[in-house]
Amino acid sequence: MSLQSIQTDFAASVENPDAAGAILLVCEHASNAFPAPWGCLGLTDAQCRAHVAWDPGALDLSRALASRLDAALVHAPVSRLIYDLNRGPDRADAMAARSEVHDIPGNQSLTAQDRLHRAQALYLPFHTALHAEIVRRLALGRATVLVTIHSFTPVYHGQPRAVEFGVIHDADPRLAQEIVTTAQAMTGLSCALNEPYSAADGVTHTLRLQATPYGLANAMLEIRNDLIATPQQAEAMAAQLAPVLQRALIAMAEG
Amino acid sequence: MSLQSIQTDFAASVENPDAAGAILLVCEHASNAFPAPWGCLGLTDAQCRAHVAWDPGALDLSRALASRLDAALVHAPVSRLIYDLNRGPDRADAMAARSEVHDIPGNQSLTAQDRLHRAQALYLPFHTALHAEIVRRLALGRATVLVTIHSFTPVYHGQPRAVEFGVIHDADPRLAQEIVTTAQAMTGLSCALNEPYSAADGVTHTLRLQATPYGLANAMLEIRNDLIATPQQAEAMAAQLAPVLQRALIAMAEG
Repeated sequence: MSLQSIQTDFAASVENPDAAGAILLVCEHASNAFPAPWGCLGLTDAQCRAHVAWDPGALDLSRALASRLDAALVHAPVSRLIYDLNRGPDRADAMAARSEVHDIPGNQSLTAQDRLHRAQALYLPFHTALHAEIVRRLALGRATVLVTIHSFTPVYHGQPRAVEFGVIHDADPRLAQEIVTTAQAMTGLSCALNEPYSAADGVTHTLRLQATPYGLANAMLEIRNDLIATPQQAEAMAAQLAPVLQRALIAMAEG
Repeated sequence: MSLQSIQTDFAASVENPDAAGAILLVCEHASNAFPAPWGCLGLTDAQCRAHVAWDPGALDLSRALASRLDAALVHAPVSRLIYDLNRGPDRADAMAARSEVHDIPGNQSLTAQDRLHRAQALYLPFHTALHAEIVRRLALGRATVLVTIHSFTPVYHGQPRAVEFGVIHDADPRLAQEIVTTAQAMTGLSCALNEPYSAADGVTHTLRLQATPYGLANAMLEIRNDLIATPQQAEAMAAQLAPVLQRALIAMAEG
């Protein structure tokens, strides 16, 4: 495939690309848009508004963090149920037939060509745009730390989750460990490393694809979505977490 | 940066994209072309023909292997002295000011903007095109193994090199180990693992960027360039190495 044929209808949204901060924020599950040609995949309106379709609050939190950290932000334009940008195209759950307790009608009988079309329309342009940002920063000699922003549901398969703020790492645990230690010291949040899931669950694809090859420090942040359900709550959470991230970066550099 | 602004004047050359074989061949140092706007960087004609500018014989060998293995091949359109596609844009030796015993006049005083321009004109389109091939194969459920093809100089810093065929691995040694074992059994070549250099020398960037994130088996092959100095020699080397690669893939799958 030639570069000219990379589709750009649903390329990543890039905000503040020239921000001076070291952190590059990524929000792969920012959107619950279900545009043509895929449409709503047979889901109800309620499902399209719920966690299954996206990470509610994650984009509001990402934008509030970007403002406080003077950070660039790359975020997704389309629901993860059409393509989950935090999964490689070899993964069944990149286009999940079932998610938690929800069957996804429009993903039940995808052909190889359907999967290819979505990967080329959504996954490839998103990760190419993110890669382009990283390449630009590295070529200019700019310090770069990759932080992905997610939210999780308070109840999963009927079980309530006590953790409020999870920090997940892939091969390089440095930043994640510093963030947890710092958050426990600076906030009242119930904070845990590799909760509510971990790299073993296949959730660190973006870190592995974009940060690890360049040795960039990285972490995946998971905030329980009832804590960022409104823009005001997301802003308040950013006010708590921005100093945590700044302090953690300094601690990591000194460590 | 938007996808639309990815330059395509010097995108990767992709041959046999629909080949049925599992191996995807990559030749990052295939070319000694010095096109405008960079030109010959102040090098002599002899330097532009020598190993410092490219890997002589590597493209001939890659094409002969592609034919015998029914493999796709992605190769570079421009000399590695303008941009070494097997190095990230944060690395000084991506645009080396000195290589072995050669000063590179045109790389002596690059600005950040010079480095950015080359990374965006050469590195980003090449690796995006290679990534697009991998994404396409994974979405279609096609088995994919990444093998990069290089050649090395028989004399380096005045010292002759005895090894004829080196096989280098990054984090995943499976395929490289099988290739060495198989080559020692099936050929008369002096073959060694992680010679004439290794991942510790920073030479496995393409493997790390393109294969490791997807868990693809991978290896970097290094052939001493006096053994593939003519197209006939390259063809003969491919006749030796193609069965080695096929046997090694089977052994790895069985292991």
